[in-house]
Amino acid sequence: MAIITLTTDFGEKDHFAGAIKGAIYNELPDVRIVDISHSISPFNIAEAAYIIQNAFSSFPKGTIHIIGIDSELNQENKHIALKLDDHYFICANNGIMSMICTEIAPEKIVEINIHDKIQSSFPVLDVFVKVACHIARGGTLEVIGKAINTIKPIKNLHPFVNDEKTQIIGSVIYIDNYGNVVTNIKKSFFESTQKGRSYEIFARHHKFKKIFTKYSDIVNFDIPPEKRQDEGRGLVVFNASNYLEIAVYKSNSETSGSASTLMGLGLMDTVTVNFLKE
Amino acid sequence: MAIITLTTDFGEKDHFAGAIKGAIYNELPDVRIVDISHSISPFNIAEAAYIIQNAFSSFPKGTIHIIGIDSELNQENKHIALKLDDHYFICANNGIMSMICTEIAPEKIVEINIHDKIQSSFPVLDVFVKVACHIARGGTLEVIGKAINTIKPIKNLHPFVNDEKTQIIGSVIYIDNYGNVVTNIKKSFFESTQKGRSYEIFARHHKFKKIFTKYSDIVNFDIPPEKRQDEGRGLVVFNASNYLEIAVYKSNSETSGSASTLMGLGLMDTVTVNFLKE
Amino acid sequence: MAIITLTTDFGEKDHFAGAIKGAIYNELPDVRIVDISHSISPFNIAEAAYIIQNAFSSFPKGTIHIIGIDSELNQENKHIALKLDDHYFICANNGIMSMICTEIAPEKIVEINIHDKIQSSFPVLDVFVKVACHIARGGTLEVIGKAINTIKPIKNLHPFVNDEKTQIIGSVIYIDNYGNVVTNIKKSFFESTQKGRSYEIFARHHKFKKIFTKYSDIVNFDIPPEKRQDEGRGLVVFNASNYLEIAVYKSNSETSGSASTLMGLGLMDTVTVNFLKE
Repeated sequence: MAIITLTTDFGEKDHFAGAIKGAIYNELPDVRIVDISHSISPFNIAEAAYIIQNAFSSFPKGTIHIIGIDSELNQENKHIALKLDDHYFICANNGIMSMICTEIAPEKIVEINIHDKIQSSFPVLDVFVKVACHIARGGTLEVIGKAINTIKPIKNLHPFVNDEKTQIIGSVIYIDNYGNVVTNIKKSFFESTQKGRSYEIFARHHKFKKIFTKYSDIVNFDIPPEKRQDEGRGLVVFNASNYLEIAVYKSNSETSGSASTLMGLGLMDTVTVNFLKE
Repeated sequence: MAIITLTTDFGEKDHFAGAIKGAIYNELPDVRIVDISHSISPFNIAEAAYIIQNAFSSFPKGTIHIIGIDSELNQENKHIALKLDDHYFICANNGIMSMICTEIAPEKIVEINIHDKIQSSFPVLDVFVKVACHIARGGTLEVIGKAINTIKPIKNLHPFVNDEKTQIIGSVIYIDNYGNVVTNIKKSFFESTQKGRSYEIFARHHKFKKIFTKYSDIVNFDIPPEKRQDEGRGLVVFNASNYLEIAVYKSNSETSGSASTLMGLGLMDTVTVNFLKE
Repeated sequence: MAIITLTTDFGEKDHFAGAIKGAIYNELPDVRIVDISHSISPFNIAEAAYIIQNAFSSFPKGTIHIIGIDSELNQENKHIALKLDDHYFICANNGIMSMICTEIAPEKIVEINIHDKIQSSFPVLDVFVKVACHIARGGTLEVIGKAINTIKPIKNLHPFVNDEKTQIIGSVIYIDNYGNVVTNIKKSFFESTQKGRSYEIFARHHKFKKIFTKYSDIVNFDIPPEKRQDEGRGLVVFNASNYLEIAVYKSNSETSGSASTLMGLGLMDTVTVNFLKE
């Protein structure tokens, strides 16, 4: 049974996601549809890139991923379909795929050209669903588009390193449901720049000298629970997706506060790592 | 495999939608359940009517749609089941179906009368699920209710036209996830009133003289991207559901603002179209 | 076909729930995954306990429930799997299961001990999914953990009764999507304490002398609809889960207000019932 996933900025309320599922089941009664997220911030390419990157690889090979963000067709925003690591992706050529494609080279990219047969003001429904069902039935990418070699990049994807190799200048790319602040500094990049040196991490006026393995490493379990004051304390971890993350232990943006609200850290804000002389 | 869709105001957090899915799978292990929306504003009949109208028709014929909005049974709020365009709908007789039924005549309407066997304070779980499973197993509407001829109407469904036929007075019926403002003026109604005349559209003190085919028609692609100032500009389109919509290009209610927040347009607000003399 | 349900505080936006579904389908192509809720307030054990308690029993026997709240493994927060009423539950031993377990005794509880084979900073994905798939394939709990006899309790689960048996002192355990205020006073407990006496219910300075059977019992249907003023009035019911609930008729937290916003009632606030002398 083919799997089609949906990642969009349609929100939880509107009829768009429901209509798309209906259209897919109408073409393919036996397909399995899985929602990854419909709550991407409207038109936020970077958020969508982060979410699809961290979700897709746990799905079986052959899964087809529809990404419906900023997908209105115009002369600067074409539709593409990709094959990469035996997964298929259908989206606008607006930068969403560049985060994944810098890590894994696509096997094939096509610019979708079936639009002359389909007039649409709702391309995810009218075009992406058609392409997804075509692939799910075993169709090839060549039939629905012409091969292209490169896709549109996304800005500020990678952190910078200064010439002396003593500093990484990263930025915030995602705020998660717990208000934790995810930077674009990946563990592998950090370690290859670090070369074993000790470090200080700066986010606004906050300084961290340690990266924890897990959130509860901040807890001193020798102190009785009722005397602890760990909840609400800031810390740094590499998160489950291996990105450097500034977190608050047991945070809640709406009540006690989170890394984002308590430290005033938002999307695109700078986070730096200074490596110290031996 | 039968499909049952769910459209409710239960929200994303509470256990209600989960409990309903469990109850359906308990009766019908092989059914397919599809969420259309659980985020209708509480008790908002007009929103639910708009959402189910725009979602249902993309599903396969035979699909069963459960609509759980304001469904507590009382002497003024009976439960009904409808067959319409080979789709089935189960809901309270509170106006939800009147938007669809003005466009497509129902083949059959019954007032559900199985309640003497079911005492319930959660009728979507105890009554609507029973009815849906009955239909999914091939049962007829006659078995679970008595035929009726009319359903309760919804107010302010249709726009008005003045006696001189020079003005359409419409109103806002939905604000979508992008903060775009959907009116009750359908494209077919607009065009049959327009008869080719030019027009001006007024929403509060905002005036529009053009209806675009798609959102990005507002962009002047001859200007280099970095010099454009199109994001945040207001425009009018007929949306994918063919309703006149006042939108803002690449809007985001929470950051840069949307048609609703920037123009101060809310549900039930008036939008007028003036047709100009030749 | 096995059913696996998901109840988490991952939210609707992040990739976590999507990644988990992918991982499950990767192991078990034919399983059915059902979302109960991903919108539990972060780290809120009591909310999760209330939601899973009210959702699980409508699912078929044999259903496997993954509960991903506060599940990071540490010396004080072990992972457990339970069999109870022919349902399976996989979660952290943090109190989530104590609400269900005070009503139905578990048949078997094990503390999961497969962690030496799995290093993980995302235990719901790496551990709970593994355990769920093991159970779905017919595996026993003994294989993945060692039997234990008790689980961690949750605080303030039960209301108090004074020595004279004239008063129940309860507290608010949940605010639902309509802003209705759910207390920890169950109907059976109320009635066995009441012993037929009349009563007064106090929540802040609000007093109620009647418990309705359903919300619309507050409506006087003899008055014409356009003259009624029932919407927005406070009332008390036993809700569909048989908990004493303070509600507002046709409430909406974001517009006209709800029991929570209009009466200023939040989680953990006190609600008392005074029984009157005959």
